[in-house]
Amino acid sequence: MISRKEYENAVVRTLGYFEKAGIVITDEEKTRIEIADFGLGRLEKEGLEILTYVNTERCCAKELVMFPGQTCCEHRHPDVNGRPGKEETFRCRYGEVYLYIEGVPARHIKATVPDAGAGAYTVFHEICLYPGEQFTLPPDTLHWFQAGPLGAIVSEFSTSSVDEADIFSDKNVQRETIIE
Amino acid sequence: MISRKEYENAVVRTLGYFEKAGIVITDEEKTRIEIADFGLGRLEKEGLEILTYVNTERCCAKELVMFPGQTCCEHRHPDVNGRPGKEETFRCRYGEVYLYIEGVPARHIKATVPDAGAGAYTVFHEICLYPGEQFTLPPDTLHWFQAGPLGAIVSEFSTSSVDEADIFSDKNVQRETIIE
Repeated sequence: MISRKEYENAVVRTLGYFEKAGIVITDEEKTRIEIADFGLGRLEKEGLEILTYVNTERCCAKELVMFPGQTCCEHRHPDVNGRPGKEETFRCRYGEVYLYIEGVPARHIKATVPDAGAGAYTVFHEICLYPGEQFTLPPDTLHWFQAGPLGAIVSEFSTSSVDEADIFSDKNVQRETIIE
Repeated sequence: MISRKEYENAVVRTLGYFEKAGIVITDEEKTRIEIADFGLGRLEKEGLEILTYVNTERCCAKELVMFPGQTCCEHRHPDVNGRPGKEETFRCRYGEVYLYIEGVPARHIKATVPDAGAGAYTVFHEICLYPGEQFTLPPDTLHWFQAGPLGAIVSEFSTSSVDEADIFSDKNVQRETIIE
């Protein structure tokens, strides 16, 4: 849960990132920026700001804005009704982002693991993305990511997005944001 | 067919557009900008500059750069092997772009129809896109588009891209560019 004021502040900051990166969005889009606190109530630490450009039955494109050090909680996109899970490409547009997936863990990761319950963060194979760099995640890949000190903007190109199907490692996560 | 020099000039100009719009691309990407003259040999009039970020079996993302007044020839993306054709969203990032599809024709279109053979341009329902604006084309929709006086950058978010399946209205079009 976040307060109305916290929500509004987050929207204003998000618009500031778009402006800084020269990404033009419409007035209509400004009114529907999604502020996701994952139901944890600590948006600055674990959260994500999302503008969905398009999401059809077949494909989807979004901009993800992240505040400095902000983390998108570990999750995966499983198969749904026999259809393969979401495949997504993250492309860094601004700032830097540290992405973690299954595989050989980095000895010293660049991110600071959020202070969450046991089992909330379990994969530590590190992929650092700087502006212009991207990485494609196959469906059902466990992953989490954190912005560097400047925050980040990440373009997401993917198959259809079905947020409610996402499986989070932290059982306290609720994908839908409740605004007080 | 275009000359090596024409190709190289077009790449340099394309990179200039990305720079102007603040779109960062990697050195590797700079080496694989596609210059499409549609086999017509009049790139300035009918052509397209393309950077494909990702193109998998399921989804695709590209940036399209267009020089001032440049036109992407009329075409459609048919079903292939029983799979529905390409669905695509065009999002204007820079400049302006005039998109034409089937439907009620505009009385006075903003674009100048290229001097091509009969039947090369047949649809004139106009959609003007300015920065931040976008339009989603269902599969198999006949369409063509032209950049305004500043040129344009258009992000394309789509299902898988299979250029060789495209059907162009101008029978002289050859999708693959031959560089002398």
